[in-house]
Parts: sequence; structure tokens; C-alpha cells
Amino acid sequence: MKARVHVMLKNGVLDPQGEAVRHALGALGFDGVNGVRQGKVIELDLAEGTSEAEVTAMCEKLLANTVIESYSVELA
Amino acid sequence: MKARVHVMLKNGVLDPQGEAVRHALGALGFDGVNGVRQGKVIELDLAEGTSEAEVTAMCEKLLANTVIESYSVELA
Repeated sequence: MKARVHVMLKNGVLDPQGEAVRHALGALGFDGVNGVRQGKVIELDLAEGTSEAEVTAMCEKLLANTVIESYSVELA
Repeated sequence: MKARVHVMLKNGVLDPQGEAVRHALGALGFDGVNGVRQGKVIELDLAEGTSEAEVTAMCEKLLANTVIESYSVELA
């Protein structure tokens, strides 16, 4: 089975990487880009029967820094 | 309007970051993690009426390195 985890900086946490992308898009002539946030996607190939709770534990312990990042888990 | 772009390394391209995560999960006692791929998510806050073609152009020109990365665009 597959799981996909999204890790994004929480709202209010400065995202310099996203800000750099926003500037670069403007410099390339793309108007109307009001904001950019950049995060991570982690695609996990897991043994059958792994529970969502286990994936959440992976996020809490390793994948996300929960002080500044939020995460969401999708099982597929 | 919002758009979300996923950028992942193409299949066959080595992903040392994902490999490191896989190892670390094993070391933390999570069994059954067969593979991990790590990519980027970019959330764009765009002016109303921006077309998907324009977002695709952003991907081609800046957001993804199409030699080694594939991308997908979701408009919301």
C-alpha cells in the first residue's frame, strides 16, 4: 500500500523558500502570483495493513517538525 | 484561486533524501517501509482567472527540473 504525507510550514511561519519562488516567478513575467508556500511530499511504500495511526506516528517522530510544520496523511 | 503543484523525481532517478528517510524510519522501529520518495509541494495563491496552461508554464520554466523531475498541477 501507498501513503502520501504532505508537510507544510504552519501559517505564520516565514517561508523564505516560497518567497524566493514568488519573486522568481515575478521576474519571469508571471503576474498575479500573490503568494507561494513550499512544502514537502513524502510518498511511502508500506507493507499491507499498516494503519493510519502508524503513519501518523512516523510524522510525529520523524517526518514533520511539529513545532513549525503541519502534516496531513492520505492513504491510497 | 489556489493551485497546488507536486514535483517528484522521475522513476529511476536516485532519491538519496527518500533513502535516508527510509533508513531513519527503520532505525526508529517502523517495519514494513519498503520505499520512500520525497518531493516538493508548491502552493500558489494566484489571481482569479489564471489558466492551467500558465501554471504549467511556471512548472516548465522554474518549478520543476524536467530533466529529472515530473510535476502535476491541481487547480482548486
